[in-house]
Amino acid sequence: MDCFMTAVDMARLIREGGLSARELVTAHLDRIERLNPRVNAIVTLTAEQAMREAAAADEDQVHGRLRGPLHGLPVAHKDLAETAGVRTTFGSPLFRDNIPVQDEIVVERLKRAGAITLGKTNTPEFGAGSQTFNPVFGATLNPYDVSRTCGGSSGGAAVALACGFTPIADGSDMGGSLRNPAAFCNVVGLRTAPGRVPNRAFGLAWSPLAVTGPMARTVADVAMMLSAIAGPDARSPISLDHPGEVFAEPLGRDLKGVRIAWFRDLGGVPFDRRIRAVVDAQRRVFEDLGCIVEVAEPGFEGVNETFLTLRAWTFEAAFGDLPPAAKAQLKDTIRHEIDRGASLAARDISRAEFAHTAFWQRFQQLLERYEYFILPVTQVPPFDVQQPYISEIDGVPMTSYTDWMRSCYYISVAGNPAISVPCGFTAEGLPVGLQIVGRWRDEWSVLQLAHAYESAAGYWRRRPEL
Amino acid sequence: MDCFMTAVDMARLIREGGLSARELVTAHLDRIERLNPRVNAIVTLTAEQAMREAAAADEDQVHGRLRGPLHGLPVAHKDLAETAGVRTTFGSPLFRDNIPVQDEIVVERLKRAGAITLGKTNTPEFGAGSQTFNPVFGATLNPYDVSRTCGGSSGGAAVALACGFTPIADGSDMGGSLRNPAAFCNVVGLRTAPGRVPNRAFGLAWSPLAVTGPMARTVADVAMMLSAIAGPDARSPISLDHPGEVFAEPLGRDLKGVRIAWFRDLGGVPFDRRIRAVVDAQRRVFEDLGCIVEVAEPGFEGVNETFLTLRAWTFEAAFGDLPPAAKAQLKDTIRHEIDRGASLAARDISRAEFAHTAFWQRFQQLLERYEYFILPVTQVPPFDVQQPYISEIDGVPMTSYTDWMRSCYYISVAGNPAISVPCGFTAEGLPVGLQIVGRWRDEWSVLQLAHAYESAAGYWRRRPEL
Repeated sequence: MDCFMTAVDMARLIREGGLSARELVTAHLDRIERLNPRVNAIVTLTAEQAMREAAAADEDQVHGRLRGPLHGLPVAHKDLAETAGVRTTFGSPLFRDNIPVQDEIVVERLKRAGAITLGKTNTPEFGAGSQTFNPVFGATLNPYDVSRTCGGSSGGAAVALACGFTPIADGSDMGGSLRNPAAFCNVVGLRTAPGRVPNRAFGLAWSPLAVTGPMARTVADVAMMLSAIAGPDARSPISLDHPGEVFAEPLGRDLKGVRIAWFRDLGGVPFDRRIRAVVDAQRRVFEDLGCIVEVAEPGFEGVNETFLTLRAWTFEAAFGDLPPAAKAQLKDTIRHEIDRGASLAARDISRAEFAHTAFWQRFQQLLERYEYFILPVTQVPPFDVQQPYISEIDGVPMTSYTDWMRSCYYISVAGNPAISVPCGFTAEGLPVGLQIVGRWRDEWSVLQLAHAYESAAGYWRRRPEL
Repeated sequence: MDCFMTAVDMARLIREGGLSARELVTAHLDRIERLNPRVNAIVTLTAEQAMREAAAADEDQVHGRLRGPLHGLPVAHKDLAETAGVRTTFGSPLFRDNIPVQDEIVVERLKRAGAITLGKTNTPEFGAGSQTFNPVFGATLNPYDVSRTCGGSSGGAAVALACGFTPIADGSDMGGSLRNPAAFCNVVGLRTAPGRVPNRAFGLAWSPLAVTGPMARTVADVAMMLSAIAGPDARSPISLDHPGEVFAEPLGRDLKGVRIAWFRDLGGVPFDRRIRAVVDAQRRVFEDLGCIVEVAEPGFEGVNETFLTLRAWTFEAAFGDLPPAAKAQLKDTIRHEIDRGASLAARDISRAEFAHTAFWQRFQQLLERYEYFILPVTQVPPFDVQQPYISEIDGVPMTSYTDWMRSCYYISVAGNPAISVPCGFTAEGLPVGLQIVGRWRDEWSVLQLAHAYESAAGYWRRRPEL
């Protein structure tokens, strides 16, 4: 049983009776037991429950009752997503023993589509930062070099996929959390359009910044997973109306003449030269697919400040009213965000929203002339896991723990769908990710180009040696 | 030529060749010329342009080129909606001579659907407050009693409809501006779902509070207009995907067994007893339609503060950076909003958003058990036009210029679609409006019930005597 088979193939084999959910779940649990201790990707395992569900899924399959497109497929949920009856810590000591009573919508939908929960994947504390470590479970290691970080915040998910612990995994993304770890671990992560995968209304329910999305090892697997988790839900005021099934169509498309805007430097953002070298070499692949590739960018003025202001505001909103004893248990970087958020005036938020709107417009204008914008996912390759964040890139000092994440969070401010797809390795063998950004709410077109690129480039096939 | 014919009939007659756009436009212009001076509803007239367009529309009709569902129909635009080449003042001396270069999306769509612009309708300064007066054009008077206000902020639109100056008119609504003037003038106004009638991204582009929508004399006319102005637009990040054509279907529906939640007092909101008497008498009409009507409300705690905070924030955002000389030209109530907005912390906005989300949830939960929530549109009947706002209701003093508008703006906080439909008159002959609120984004069901009620009740037929 090959745990690196595509999710699409696994699902087909199960449907056709050529593979049982029990075999599949058993193989994945064995692999987790054997290899997870080396990388610490899965932090809560639900092995017994998974075996029971696998048996029930096989029973259903035999009687012709397929639950949905993911029937019998193992899945792992990010530890920021609530799972009914299964420990959900958010990577925080404050929730060390938290057992939710309900599933987040994405979990509910994965179950309804037939997927079988293997457990929970590690995240930074409350998802803050693109480095996966927390005081509850420690750090998750990069399987391509276990001395390095896997990125984050959906770091456990990315590592679990890269290691063959699960064929699909959910993640979430405010400033890059579906894309950064995918890039660092040579898997695929899709930042969806706001409302595409609805979350329960909570807190700032109309905010378009934080989204939920699919992760897998191939673009087609991501598309299949998206077809199961996308679609309207009455519990979210921003949920989009299109049913998820539209993402189950074949991804093939003639890309001749398609216009692509290629990044320059995002208005002065530093990139490690290893990243630049690997990503720029891919331009040729798109040209070979028939695309017309030109260097073109929107203006990025005001985007950095907009994101940092809205981010601090969001953290203060989430944690500002905690009692001091609880606040003391938060990591420094989160406490700094809260303090910054507490010092903001209401007018700082409206002015950030003005800049948000203005950038949205500039970005859409660029994507009238081009169908895609392509840039690196990350500004640096995976770095030392002992280092909480990057302090310098190519001689440019970083001013905060998020400063090295601009190539992701700038795109979050636009809000357009964006995928991270494997695009090669540095000389040291570290994975690099290519970011394809599509038109407003058009995940489908993003998946199409990413699928064609992936097939042509083929880097996703290089699995880590553990 | 009867200017009180329904818009649906006018459109059909034009399509069929039984009426020309020139006849129709001429009749409306004559009526405006004769009667508008008594009420001051139309503040900018585009008579010559309208006649030219009517001639072109007739030419098109003869050659079988129908532009859209509103071919040849007169329309007037709220003076808050930008109209290319036509003066748009926002009711402010600051924009006394403003001639925009582009049309707002609703205007563009009305034109594309074949409607012919007669002019602009009056509003309060920048739409602030539900009383239509401003230093540029003065007050608009209620045609049912010209000593009284027509409400607002889409006051000019409501009066123009009531007086037969136009069969359809656009409006906009943050705290009740499509509903309050409709109620005061015995016409119909529909507060749409956020994103149903997209506005150009500007300022706080993701905010669901301010919406654009249709006004007319009957529910079917409102539905026909909505079919022309609803639908997705790439220039708005919150625009909804469904095409507008869905609103052109026949409105008939069997309402037997439909469950309606009837208002009690919105958690202690005062209502003038004349309003209560007229509205409560309508319960019987819904029961006769076969509906099950029960008194039931969501909890309204926190809703008032939420709206007032977000409103002040919005005004500060829009006007806070004006130079002092310009600010001095704003009316007092707007300056107060700006000052209040300037004194707010970012955390006040997030906490208001938390309450916003919580109320949204409570409201949706109520509408799981019931299909509709019904309440009065306004807390008072039309009042003295010399009075800028209501200072006391049924012995309860009002604390601000917006305090008497809660029955509308509470519903704005939920964000569910809501229609104002004529439901009778006070003993003095002043119109009263009934507010039907539907499920999330479900304008269609709101239109269906309103249509059935309107047919059964028939109050819309009583036109003012001018």
